[in-house]
Amino acid sequence: MGADMNDDIDASEWLNTDEPPSLRALRGKVVVVTVFQMLCQGCARTSLPQARNLHASLPRGDAAVIGLHSVFEHHHVMTPEALRVFAGEYGLTFPIAIDRAREGLPIPATMHRWELDGTPTLLVFGRDGGLALRHFGHVDDLRLGLVLGQLLAHPSGGTAAGGPGGDEGRDDAGGEPVCSI
Amino acid sequence: MGADMNDDIDASEWLNTDEPPSLRALRGKVVVVTVFQMLCQGCARTSLPQARNLHASLPRGDAAVIGLHSVFEHHHVMTPEALRVFAGEYGLTFPIAIDRAREGLPIPATMHRWELDGTPTLLVFGRDGGLALRHFGHVDDLRLGLVLGQLLAHPSGGTAAGGPGGDEGRDDAGGEPVCSI
Amino acid sequence: MGADMNDDIDASEWLNTDEPPSLRALRGKVVVVTVFQMLCQGCARTSLPQARNLHASLPRGDAAVIGLHSVFEHHHVMTPEALRVFAGEYGLTFPIAIDRAREGLPIPATMHRWELDGTPTLLVFGRDGGLALRHFGHVDDLRLGLVLGQLLAHPSGGTAAGGPGGDEGRDDAGGEPVCSI
Amino acid sequence: MGADMNDDIDASEWLNTDEPPSLRALRGKVVVVTVFQMLCQGCARTSLPQARNLHASLPRGDAAVIGLHSVFEHHHVMTPEALRVFAGEYGLTFPIAIDRAREGLPIPATMHRWELDGTPTLLVFGRDGGLALRHFGHVDDLRLGLVLGQLLAHPSGGTAAGGPGGDEGRDDAGGEPVCSI
Repeated sequence: MGADMNDDIDASEWLNTDEPPSLRALRGKVVVVTVFQMLCQGCARTSLPQARNLHASLPRGDAAVIGLHSVFEHHHVMTPEALRVFAGEYGLTFPIAIDRAREGLPIPATMHRWELDGTPTLLVFGRDGGLALRHFGHVDDLRLGLVLGQLLAHPSGGTAAGGPGGDEGRDDAGGEPVCSI
Repeated sequence: MGADMNDDIDASEWLNTDEPPSLRALRGKVVVVTVFQMLCQGCARTSLPQARNLHASLPRGDAAVIGLHSVFEHHHVMTPEALRVFAGEYGLTFPIAIDRAREGLPIPATMHRWELDGTPTLLVFGRDGGLALRHFGHVDDLRLGLVLGQLLAHPSGGTAAGGPGGDEGRDDAGGEPVCSI
Repeated sequence: MGADMNDDIDASEWLNTDEPPSLRALRGKVVVVTVFQMLCQGCARTSLPQARNLHASLPRGDAAVIGLHSVFEHHHVMTPEALRVFAGEYGLTFPIAIDRAREGLPIPATMHRWELDGTPTLLVFGRDGGLALRHFGHVDDLRLGLVLGQLLAHPSGGTAAGGPGGDEGRDDAGGEPVCSI
Repeated sequence: MGADMNDDIDASEWLNTDEPPSLRALRGKVVVVTVFQMLCQGCARTSLPQARNLHASLPRGDAAVIGLHSVFEHHHVMTPEALRVFAGEYGLTFPIAIDRAREGLPIPATMHRWELDGTPTLLVFGRDGGLALRHFGHVDDLRLGLVLGQLLAHPSGGTAAGGPGGDEGRDDAGGEPVCSI
């Protein structure tokens, strides 16, 4: 089963916000969730700079960018304290959820329930809460802009058959390194 | 006065097509027109590779990419023969109009009527034929994707007030060199 | 006072090597020292990938690449454990010194004695041990290659007046972000 | 047989200079010859911008950058007049030789005698006139800088066995497109 607004982000803590958002509460907006690990090279070099651009470019009333820090390896050094420093150094100002650790298991709660493959993973939800795009690896700016533009234009979502996204793709191009579970 | 579907491309010749398109006949589709000169550095390095990507990425049934070769300087070397070679070397396979020369005047017909500032210039028309974006210089992929995605989603156009584009902007960033009239 | 082979790296620990190198012992080789902090964005995005390329490209018998992790801020999260993970994720296989912390002072020992301005800083020593280039910020590949090539060609160093480098420059271009003390 | 200073550039015309240089007359300097065609995409996008940087970066008293326009296809549009416009638009200010056409044969004289494979091709000669590097395709800045730096440091050349370059390589990476004979 994949990501779903009824199967919301399970965070142990949030950064950059006093009012933790939920996918459910964001219904009506287009929501981009960028799943990352702070020491994953592909995240630091491509997906997080892209998320920063999205946060600066998308209309606030109609869209939201959320980071999800899903640590599935090297837990002892990718701590909340370290993430806070990292977010400051990289100028990440959008809300960032820390995916809830599960006792004795490496994969955190949301990543597990959403059955993600690793980091970076990009998820895009339409206004109606349906998953419109899910991609492990990097999505280029033109393609992502096309998907988001179409979702923004739909008052009531964009997950109908034949919608703009819907791939459950992987980045095979081998450009930026990903971190696989 | 700006570009308008009722004020169509005035071409003396077309490349890459047996059935020269017109903006009017393309009504119902989103249309990207990339205005260039083959020896303009900014065109060769950024706007034409982007147009090539658009031509490969946009859904053919709903969108069209058109090149407009508007020569306003060095006419003796940017000839139709030279353009044909250039298009082949750069892998440009979308239809390219050669803007009609005007006797004794440097600026060709369409460029003159549309009051363009130079090359590269990007124009985007919505499904209803209205001008949605016009930009002298380079438009980055994310922003262009957002505009195009919104226009694609609108069955009947996208030029209402508050539409996605509508800037009559210039690229001041000074990155790639432009060629000004 | 600047960096000097007689004023060697003062490391509390080394990664990626069983035989910690010293500038003095490397006399006869051209030595590149890249000073970084693992959470400094400019380091992660430009100076460390460049150091990785240098390590792969320079002739091992005649040159050495050394990393110097000089933590002057956020000490609690840029720990040796975190650095070890970071080096693994970023594929850094050259020897990395951890600059010795000084009790109660933010700036570590080598960084203090060498009077560095922040990270990334690049230092290049000629075969005779003299400092040939020192730069706070990014040095582009062509310029760095020219300096290193000249130093490699000199059997006995390259720090004579009129030598290839010798700038004590800063990167003012404002491209990649640096971390200033 | 390869390029040789005793087998000099055979030009029908020179741009950007009143005193056409010869490899023989440049003996004592390091000489970079960038062989290109103005409508070859790989030349316009990578090798010519690199040559422009070299011309700006190398010490004039010790090095020279020369362009060689070797047209082996589409001769009717890559004329001297077109090249002059192209050089102006791309800001190429170093001397450019037009490789002498041979009656009834597509490959021009210097390209033929030097047995080149196509464009872009980079040739580097040491101070003693010996060929130090010859490469069909793009040479990255770091590697090129290393070769040039070593040649600059040798008062009397750099073509001895074990010299810095000497590859007769091709660019297999498949990045920028080349134009093969």
